[in-house]
Amino acid sequence: MNSLKLLDKAVEQFASLPGIGRKTALKFVLNLLKREDEEVKAFTESIIDLKKNIRECTVCHNITDGEICDICSNPKRDRTLVCVVENIKDILSIEATSQYNGLYHVLGGVISPMDGIGPTDLHIASLIKRVEDDNNIREIIFALSATIEGDTTGYYIYKRLANKEKLVISTIAKGISIGNNLEYTDELTLGRSIVNRVKFNLNG
Amino acid sequence: MNSLKLLDKAVEQFASLPGIGRKTALKFVLNLLKREDEEVKAFTESIIDLKKNIRECTVCHNITDGEICDICSNPKRDRTLVCVVENIKDILSIEATSQYNGLYHVLGGVISPMDGIGPTDLHIASLIKRVEDDNNIREIIFALSATIEGDTTGYYIYKRLANKEKLVISTIAKGISIGNNLEYTDELTLGRSIVNRVKFNLNG
Repeated sequence: MNSLKLLDKAVEQFASLPGIGRKTALKFVLNLLKREDEEVKAFTESIIDLKKNIRECTVCHNITDGEICDICSNPKRDRTLVCVVENIKDILSIEATSQYNGLYHVLGGVISPMDGIGPTDLHIASLIKRVEDDNNIREIIFALSATIEGDTTGYYIYKRLANKEKLVISTIAKGISIGNNLEYTDELTLGRSIVNRVKFNLNG
Repeated sequence: MNSLKLLDKAVEQFASLPGIGRKTALKFVLNLLKREDEEVKAFTESIIDLKKNIRECTVCHNITDGEICDICSNPKRDRTLVCVVENIKDILSIEATSQYNGLYHVLGGVISPMDGIGPTDLHIASLIKRVEDDNNIREIIFALSATIEGDTTGYYIYKRLANKEKLVISTIAKGISIGNNLEYTDELTLGRSIVNRVKFNLNG
């Protein structure tokens, strides 16, 4: 049954997305099947365009269509501040608060031994090197999830950077609910927690 | 910000899928961004292939890569039985029970005035015509959801076909839980309800 094979292939692809099972995937595929050809073309081309044109900023690991991302190359941003985040979703969330005008550094995750993710799997080495090479940087702000993994990651980076003179290491205020991931925090709370950031200390 | 525009376009497309909001769509897009080029190509091509090669069977509205679907053109199927279903997901569910060897007719939905879906929006006219033209057909089996909309649809078609002599109109046994959609029924219950189908009567 060739048509069922084609259907199954598409279902399998959608079922590979995070949190999507075969029944939901089938719902998506049947929804796409019902649409006009041009609509489906727009759908697939948006993915192809994205994949073809987007790569990682060589400085901060944000997404970019060039070498350096729009935030790193923006002369109006405060180059003394670097906000350390888990992923680019967090950059989008923080940018939406309009409360922060510094730069970012995307780790690509947090240290999580349970998931087999260690410091070398993250962009921590490039952060350390960036702080060493760039004399403009005066403050590192941790904007990590208020989870054990987020705290561990902050602590690990803090230990690696604590010997740098004149470098302030801060963390966003614990206005964000304990146990929650950053992406589920509302803009007001997240904005306030950036403004009210406190010096990083081992007691959280 | 061109890279964000590209990201946003892809997010918008995924957010157009049923039940998917912008946050989940963003999660999907970032997941795809992290994958290898070939993996993303396989993803988009499965959709393009499907859309390019699949159309509706001109007889029963099942999916097919030709003119007539594999079930309608299979000489081993019992051509005296036509099982009326809402969508092709239901065909897949019933085929998985291995309890049915007849043909199908896909309505494309059920009558639902609340959603603005009337009889003319469904493949009911083509079912009536099919019964009139094809003298092999001896029985019409309703395998519709046990909801008000499903019952209404069965009743509507019953009224249109009741005057046909020698045509048996049956409905799958109400072993399927009342209020549930067909796709969430387990294979055993669904198979049994096909075997134990009863004559359609107005008291359900």
